[in-house]
Amino acid sequence: MAKEKIEPELVEHSGLGRVKLDFSPSNQSFKVPPGVSVFDAASWNGIAIDSTCGGHGTCKKCKVQITEGIVPISRLDIRAFSQEELKNGWRLACVARATENLAITVPAMTTRPKAATVGVGRQVILRPAVQKRYLELIEPTLQDQRPDIQRVLDAIDDFELKVEFSVLQKLPKILRSANFKVTAVIVDDTLIDIEPGDTSIIKFGIAFDLGTTTVVATLLDLETGTPAAVKSMLNKQQPFGADVISRISATMLDETALGKLRLAAQNTLSELTIEVCETAKIEPMNVYEISVAGNATMIQLALGVDPEPVGVAPFITASQHWPILLANEYGVQINPNAKAYTFPSLGAYVGGDIVAGVLATGMDRDKRVRLFIDVGTNCEIVLSSGDTILTTAAPAGPAFEAASIKCGMRAAEGAIEVIKINQDGLEIQVIGEVPPVGLCGSGLVDAVSELVKVGFLDSSGRFVDDVSALKIQPDLASRLITLENGERIFILHGDALEPLVYLTQRDVRELQFAKASIATGWKILLEQLEIQESEIQQVLLAGSFGSYLSPASAVNIGLVPKLPILRILSAGNVAGEGAKMTLLSQSERKGAETVIEEIEYVELSDRSDFNDKFIEQLAFPL
Amino acid sequence: MAKEKIEPELVEHSGLGRVKLDFSPSNQSFKVPPGVSVFDAASWNGIAIDSTCGGHGTCKKCKVQITEGIVPISRLDIRAFSQEELKNGWRLACVARATENLAITVPAMTTRPKAATVGVGRQVILRPAVQKRYLELIEPTLQDQRPDIQRVLDAIDDFELKVEFSVLQKLPKILRSANFKVTAVIVDDTLIDIEPGDTSIIKFGIAFDLGTTTVVATLLDLETGTPAAVKSMLNKQQPFGADVISRISATMLDETALGKLRLAAQNTLSELTIEVCETAKIEPMNVYEISVAGNATMIQLALGVDPEPVGVAPFITASQHWPILLANEYGVQINPNAKAYTFPSLGAYVGGDIVAGVLATGMDRDKRVRLFIDVGTNCEIVLSSGDTILTTAAPAGPAFEAASIKCGMRAAEGAIEVIKINQDGLEIQVIGEVPPVGLCGSGLVDAVSELVKVGFLDSSGRFVDDVSALKIQPDLASRLITLENGERIFILHGDALEPLVYLTQRDVRELQFAKASIATGWKILLEQLEIQESEIQQVLLAGSFGSYLSPASAVNIGLVPKLPILRILSAGNVAGEGAKMTLLSQSERKGAETVIEEIEYVELSDRSDFNDKFIEQLAFPL
Repeated sequence: MAKEKIEPELVEHSGLGRVKLDFSPSNQSFKVPPGVSVFDAASWNGIAIDSTCGGHGTCKKCKVQITEGIVPISRLDIRAFSQEELKNGWRLACVARATENLAITVPAMTTRPKAATVGVGRQVILRPAVQKRYLELIEPTLQDQRPDIQRVLDAIDDFELKVEFSVLQKLPKILRSANFKVTAVIVDDTLIDIEPGDTSIIKFGIAFDLGTTTVVATLLDLETGTPAAVKSMLNKQQPFGADVISRISATMLDETALGKLRLAAQNTLSELTIEVCETAKIEPMNVYEISVAGNATMIQLALGVDPEPVGVAPFITASQHWPILLANEYGVQINPNAKAYTFPSLGAYVGGDIVAGVLATGMDRDKRVRLFIDVGTNCEIVLSSGDTILTTAAPAGPAFEAASIKCGMRAAEGAIEVIKINQDGLEIQVIGEVPPVGLCGSGLVDAVSELVKVGFLDSSGRFVDDVSALKIQPDLASRLITLENGERIFILHGDALEPLVYLTQRDVRELQFAKASIATGWKILLEQLEIQESEIQQVLLAGSFGSYLSPASAVNIGLVPKLPILRILSAGNVAGEGAKMTLLSQSERKGAETVIEEIEYVELSDRSDFNDKFIEQLAFPL
Repeated sequence: MAKEKIEPELVEHSGLGRVKLDFSPSNQSFKVPPGVSVFDAASWNGIAIDSTCGGHGTCKKCKVQITEGIVPISRLDIRAFSQEELKNGWRLACVARATENLAITVPAMTTRPKAATVGVGRQVILRPAVQKRYLELIEPTLQDQRPDIQRVLDAIDDFELKVEFSVLQKLPKILRSANFKVTAVIVDDTLIDIEPGDTSIIKFGIAFDLGTTTVVATLLDLETGTPAAVKSMLNKQQPFGADVISRISATMLDETALGKLRLAAQNTLSELTIEVCETAKIEPMNVYEISVAGNATMIQLALGVDPEPVGVAPFITASQHWPILLANEYGVQINPNAKAYTFPSLGAYVGGDIVAGVLATGMDRDKRVRLFIDVGTNCEIVLSSGDTILTTAAPAGPAFEAASIKCGMRAAEGAIEVIKINQDGLEIQVIGEVPPVGLCGSGLVDAVSELVKVGFLDSSGRFVDDVSALKIQPDLASRLITLENGERIFILHGDALEPLVYLTQRDVRELQFAKASIATGWKILLEQLEIQESEIQQVLLAGSFGSYLSPASAVNIGLVPKLPILRILSAGNVAGEGAKMTLLSQSERKGAETVIEEIEYVELSDRSDFNDKFIEQLAFPL
């Protein structure tokens, strides 16, 4: 919750700087924000420590030895260790907060933990919040009149569980009909269900990337860490507008719109849920948790929270953190007590999708200088120096909306997605290999990039005149024409008599505006951290739009810094990957909450130098 | 050493024995179970300590000085006090657990706390879980983009609040429509509502005594501690049977019965809620909490939890403690986020109503030797030596059910409730001062007592023969007749030709059985604590039945120990009083949970000596 009760273990820390942890015997070193538990720090870096409770301080198995640096003795340590052991630096890793540099010896594990590779090469140790325990309970007698729930809780002695009320309601019947042989379903620290017999290996979760345009659901087998099914569909909120602002406007014009938008989001998530379960032939009752990554507006709409203050200055969200909700609040019909984790947001325009992206890319746990750009109508930028992380949101305007580009369309069948111009002329690739009917975002960037490269567009972004065009590349010059309304266009498909798919001067201006805004964003972040463009070791292009951009074209038009192409990586659907990680690992979930504390938000509209820099960035690099 | 971060809040204690607390400057001493906080211990004994958060460790106002004995330094103490103060024994009372004898100095309060007298002379300091805070918030700007909820939480800095999801949903609209002037509604440590404007003094709760026969609702003004309205009605579950066993049986015979019984309970509570709110002219939306005391079966039925295992050997409840629920789970339509506190039960037959009774009578905090008897079909007995508390349940049979007594009826209009026999003959009091139509429980006990006294019943419980009766009291002898079926009866109203209300030999046997069972119960408890009957300083008769018994008659028939009448007290509706206390004070609520740990349950059916003792008790004392 926004302000959770502080557990005694959660000693306050300054939040500034990082502390270094040296792990033995693996001889690995990592820097983490002060206050992070040794257990989570190890987990984030692929070092597994014994645990059955997943870091709740109840199983007392995560024993490590602190050989350098000081970790205060906690209440739980006293129960877990002898005085001698405490003196020798033995601590429970889950309550050992790293507030200074530490050297830590991790004992060999008794069992080998499972792990999965998720996100951008992230190795995640499988410690899902969803756990199951098969219990063969002793039946009650007059000499043993423990209440039913006590009998269950006593059998799960490495946990201190809260109990969902509906479990109490069904417990007497289930225990007796199953002859006291049942499986307890635990999510985080709550007993959410009791199932007859042994169902312990059947446990699933769904990771949702709740995008403004597209919503993606991944059904995860939490026993193995592998996806059982993936489905995506357009967000059913589309009829209310293509971007967040138009959807917020809808709620301002019609007071019933918020309810309708919420229902549309719920229906989207609900249909995807049915689809993934049917595809994988999984009972929805065996899905116990969902994780939802979305921008602040998508989350507030899906949860029925008035988004108006998000949309108008001074741009205020209802909450940064969201409580663990019932999955049902998102309209998802799975186990009735299934939980929903919602990613926190950094602000009105750097939302939970970006936090998920940071998690999936490990932006906060990597020593490299990295730049993360989620390209869209609102473009989010994250820059990490390896020590410090800044973020900002750049308003990219409508260039990446199909509707504002003359022949724009979504990246669907018939969209030109790749364009190359060389001595042989124009070469296009069309989604579905059908005759082209429009131009999607990556095609737009390619088109502009290629036309700048050949010289049909000058550095100011203006189409050259016909004479110049003929001089530059005569066989393509006929594609550059002036329409009756006076607008210059470049024909991508069709001819002067019947131009079918083309790029207008105005389209170029839209993209120019967008790329200038984005570039101004990362320029300002680079300046603030005193980093040169050339020092950037990796640029990650993210989002359903960014992931399809040609890195070369992005460099060409100056949307990303001028770097060797190999340093520019399409990161894919990082929001969805981040959501998966939080289902697979409680440590990663804590990591998502930690990210919020680590990243500093830079407000662009506050800066007096924004306009000057923006104008500098308008030109195309030659 | 002092740097060790041992959390005193959570130090386990043996639960055995008691520790003595000496409070200055009031010079009062009390014994409490080890592990209780100094704050609660003071509160239970009417000593007020400064606090705004009510003992959550967040306001840091409850400063006391420990002058003798040791209380470890907690994490919160470190934040609240200087090193010097800590060294001098200053601690926060709410986290200072008394694990040994202590001397405590309480500083003068900055504000005078309100208190109310509840239960059997209990003085309760008003610290309800329901609190309100009027907030005049600063409106957001581009320079202050804190999320809405953060703005609210920052303004309530003496709390670390969880936030109800629906508050987040409504927050943006309410803040803006109320110009950021709102009242926060807090229950325990959760923000449950935000109301426009200043409503801070309007806060109500409802205490329910959910009896098998009668349900009582008290609407409490939590600002003043005074009842605003009290209403009672018959439990709408009556059609399913008069006692718990018949209602449990109903659920075993018909699988739809549990749902119907739940609904009947909900309708009872719901109607009472409407009645008390209407009577007091209070908006149900301003009722933020309820407290429910009931026996284990009533609670399970009201909550829709299968009660079958409670009703059949080995008599198992679903749970001892119940989570804090929404009041709506009890069918009570008040503020939608209003909470419901449910009293824990000691076992299948010593339920939350008895825990509430112990709270209301202070059985656990009194140095006197006291015996508490809740008289009913199932009779609960609690004996305190001043140090140790035992409880047991005695099956009293159907004597106290109207249906099993020939002319039995509930204590309603037309019931004979008092009977006296003296030289002038028979004297009766009838409820409503109308011609009698039946005999209620207190009348039954009086009748038997008086007939034993004059000698119409011998000590074995048999009506004397007509000759003896004529000798004993000729003017009453005509009332003792033999019916055609051979049964001897004593006519209370009417005559031999037309006996209207009368006592049968079988009725006497039923009562004899009941009183023998009850007396065996307290005899065994007395033996176990090695206490003589004469040492008992107070007998409390409780329950809707027990409260109306004539103490003299109860002594006469041997239902209670032979003691001076002044030591026998009718305690009234102690379950309802206990419920009120938990609404008025969070400390008292913790007290209810502590009671569970303090009381030892003695199982009668296990005892080899039960039958012998029972037979000994069958005779009436002469």
